Amino acid sequence: MTHRVAVIGGGSSGLACIKCCLDEGLEPVCFESSDDIGGLWRFKVSHYMASIYHSLIINTSKERMCFSDFPIPAHFPNFMHNSLIMDYFRMYADHFQLTKHIRFNTKVLQVKQRSDFSHSGQWDVETEDKDGKKDKHIFDAVLICIGHHCHPNMPLHDFPGINTFTGRYFHSRDYKTPEEWRNKKAIVVGIGNSGGDIAVELSRVTKQVYLSTRRGAWIKYRMSVRGFPLDMLTSRVQSSLLQLLPFGLQCSMAENQMNQRIDHICRFIMATAQFFNQHPTVNDELPNRILSGTVMVKPNIRRFQGSSVEFDDGSVVEDIDLVVFATGYKFSFPFLTSQVVSVSENKASLYKYVFPPELDRPTLAIIGLVQPLGSTIPVSEMQARWATRVFKGQSVSVFKSVNVSTVHGFMDTQCVDYVAYMDEIAELVGVKPALSRLLLTDPRLGLNVMFGPTTPCQYRLRGPGKWAGARQAILTQWERVAKPMQTRICDEPKAQRSFKWPLILSVTALALAVYVKRKSFPSCIILIFIFNWTMY
Amino acid sequence: MTHRVAVIGGGSSGLACIKCCLDEGLEPVCFESSDDIGGLWRFKVSHYMASIYHSLIINTSKERMCFSDFPIPAHFPNFMHNSLIMDYFRMYADHFQLTKHIRFNTKVLQVKQRSDFSHSGQWDVETEDKDGKKDKHIFDAVLICIGHHCHPNMPLHDFPGINTFTGRYFHSRDYKTPEEWRNKKAIVVGIGNSGGDIAVELSRVTKQVYLSTRRGAWIKYRMSVRGFPLDMLTSRVQSSLLQLLPFGLQCSMAENQMNQRIDHICRFIMATAQFFNQHPTVNDELPNRILSGTVMVKPNIRRFQGSSVEFDDGSVVEDIDLVVFATGYKFSFPFLTSQVVSVSENKASLYKYVFPPELDRPTLAIIGLVQPLGSTIPVSEMQARWATRVFKGQSVSVFKSVNVSTVHGFMDTQCVDYVAYMDEIAELVGVKPALSRLLLTDPRLGLNVMFGPTTPCQYRLRGPGKWAGARQAILTQWERVAKPMQTRICDEPKAQRSFKWPLILSVTALALAVYVKRKSFPSCIILIFIFNWTMY
Repeated sequence: MTHRVAVIGGGSSGLACIKCCLDEGLEPVCFESSDDIGGLWRFKVSHYMASIYHSLIINTSKERMCFSDFPIPAHFPNFMHNSLIMDYFRMYADHFQLTKHIRFNTKVLQVKQRSDFSHSGQWDVETEDKDGKKDKHIFDAVLICIGHHCHPNMPLHDFPGINTFTGRYFHSRDYKTPEEWRNKKAIVVGIGNSGGDIAVELSRVTKQVYLSTRRGAWIKYRMSVRGFPLDMLTSRVQSSLLQLLPFGLQCSMAENQMNQRIDHICRFIMATAQFFNQHPTVNDELPNRILSGTVMVKPNIRRFQGSSVEFDDGSVVEDIDLVVFATGYKFSFPFLTSQVVSVSENKASLYKYVFPPELDRPTLAIIGLVQPLGSTIPVSEMQARWATRVFKGQSVSVFKSVNVSTVHGFMDTQCVDYVAYMDEIAELVGVKPALSRLLLTDPRLGLNVMFGPTTPCQYRLRGPGKWAGARQAILTQWERVAKPMQTRICDEPKAQRSFKWPLILSVTALALAVYVKRKSFPSCIILIFIFNWTMY
Repeated sequence: MTHRVAVIGGGSSGLACIKCCLDEGLEPVCFESSDDIGGLWRFKVSHYMASIYHSLIINTSKERMCFSDFPIPAHFPNFMHNSLIMDYFRMYADHFQLTKHIRFNTKVLQVKQRSDFSHSGQWDVETEDKDGKKDKHIFDAVLICIGHHCHPNMPLHDFPGINTFTGRYFHSRDYKTPEEWRNKKAIVVGIGNSGGDIAVELSRVTKQVYLSTRRGAWIKYRMSVRGFPLDMLTSRVQSSLLQLLPFGLQCSMAENQMNQRIDHICRFIMATAQFFNQHPTVNDELPNRILSGTVMVKPNIRRFQGSSVEFDDGSVVEDIDLVVFATGYKFSFPFLTSQVVSVSENKASLYKYVFPPELDRPTLAIIGLVQPLGSTIPVSEMQARWATRVFKGQSVSVFKSVNVSTVHGFMDTQCVDYVAYMDEIAELVGVKPALSRLLLTDPRLGLNVMFGPTTPCQYRLRGPGKWAGARQAILTQWERVAKPMQTRICDEPKAQRSFKWPLILSVTALALAVYVKRKSFPSCIILIFIFNWTMY
């Protein structure tokens, strides 16, 4: 029996879904409303879909954001500009010949259960091409990959007097480049990733930027100690140990770390919520722009009046030329009836953030809706691997269980822990790395998996979709991190990661193995921490 | 007898000189070739004088860069945009009524010793106004305040094939804004402060920026731990202790500190020279731009060929649209004969970087030519205070002594230690803070002077030019640092600098006093270090 799967959307999640369908012997048909792949990541000027600004650079480093069986070329920079991300997507699509499964310029109008859904699990899908020609299809399963940046959220009713405002205003989606605003005065509303980036960029040309925030934010850096990407410095072990601590302590530790770097500046923009209760804003430049006064942080806007703007603290700024509402997006599934997935107040309940729990048959999955504290692409890919296995009936699914997660929208994004969530789904797919076996059979690899960065290749070491190149990809990940920086070779760069540490680690691993059997849990933790520190 | 003093140049040093002349009862006449004050700091498009780019932000924080008796307003940001620096200069000029002493649009053609110079010490000064009208003046003394950014250094002969280059090239002086270069490819030659800033700015709009450097650089940040300006975290005591260490150790310590932050990125741009042998490049954003690949560091250019450029390592980049030569400036004194000051190979020998040693009478001083590892404005002001005292015969000067310093030019700038040099000149003026007396008579102030940041107000506590507001200015300096950040007051910002530390310090000060008399030097050092750490 052929399983025909509709993939809705040709962005990063859509590409992963086509690939996973092919891997599982399913027959994917991807409907993409625009004329190209890449979704959100493709720079374009559009008023109809989510889109990005010209200078956007991704927040996760290349070794953490890649598809798990297709590492990003060594010479690519660690944090890629959106144009390079598109290059990477095209390489991925070419390599696995995904494009031929995509129908471009085709919009999905409706996805509806067939009358015999309860035993066939099939779906009626209605599409429309750019000439307005409609088409009807029958699919055995549906993967929805439209992302969470669907509709701009622009709560104008919260801003009295906006109708009297004499400057221009628009949603961050419509911000592309700063040139136009040279020597003007601008307000950016919202201190999420977009708000922070746009404020920084505008501040280089404008007379003044005000960054208005109601709740504040925790500011995280891309770059960590010694110039390494921050996300390359958290290991699986560290992450698991953190999970063992009480939530309040986890938050305090993270908050303290932030404060060490920037609390002098940032205590006035600090989030009111605890660290892990609010999606942090990643921005390496914002603190400097605040310190130079070119970005001035302000509370929420109370009202507009002509060209002047009053804030909640009573302060007024005059002659504002521009307001950018970086107030996020709302998600919705306009082609689905609310019986399939009900979205209310920008929340949706999904089994493990993927499957609508009310369906009789698990033949529809929503991919890439969750926002992990980490990279989204590997998460989407893992969800796709799971969903396609479920479609084939090869991954046991106990839906309607207690484990229904709720996906929140733009303002209340639940921060899902990356490793914990990936491991959870990987377990269901059968691809979670077998740590103890690895340590025994391939200690070098095992240590890298345990104490190195949690790169996606770790989920290609075994089980369905196992990739022969995964081991090598993991062992060479630091080389790919270093490569793009080696553009000016000095005579004798100091040895940074000497050959000593694999030796030290191997010896300690043995000691640890002995300890685990003889000593108590706390001493293990201490050892593991020492361990971890020797890595960096 | 009236002392008429010619002040050549109306930039920051010129303003300080006018003020110091007035303080000493001298009669200043300032000749400024343009139509406004501010010198280098005034943003303008000019091919005839040094000028800055639109986005330039100063590298020293406001409490460290200010004129010593005129603190920068509390609400001004810590690192000021050039437009705010101009605002500050105007406030200074207004407050002390300096502008009426300036003859704008007047160029100095010649400064020559009068025939009776050996006993009168007088100078013939020839000027020309914008209508070409020439004028002759006699002055008792001359202060030269034309800075070290006189003539762009553009060593085109070092770049074979530049005449075949099909793109555009110019000196960093002619770089103003990046707009024009959107989606182009640019090379910035030179990794000084200008080169770093311009590379970062261009990298936000261009397709690719290559940053070419022959010698590399040490990268320093404006912002240090907890978001404080780095230059606010070095105290007089710390600085003196550092001076006690062997030079190599000083360098290693500084280099290690840099590496802790960015060596993964920067070991390929590290300077070949030791830290304190090369003026560091201050840039908080460059490491991030390198990590994102938008700035790619390259070795020296070997040759140009049409639109392609070959580097010393043999690598070639194609389709280059722009080359910015951020190769610094040369200084010269075209209106002076070489008998007065001889500049050869961009070096000049001056007594304590101020007085030409060969003159019979010390009635000519060069102000602001030194580049300290710290802020230039307070140094110029201190030099002006000294020079005006010397002119009046009130500061003993033993010229032609062994103490002739050499000022080096753009590439070999000697890094003069700020505190050591300021103290040296202050001693001559008689305004060096009397530390032990301060500790006994006004311990709170004394501790601030010793262990707090070395702000210029410290040199207004006593002696000629003593300023009654100096004490208060020092005790409130941290308030002025904090003020510009308090634009979004949270309910309960954590107490950052609690009332506890003055208490702790006072107690420790007593203990220290006892120790100094009884114990050995090393234990003192340890105590002082502990001390210093409790401050931050």
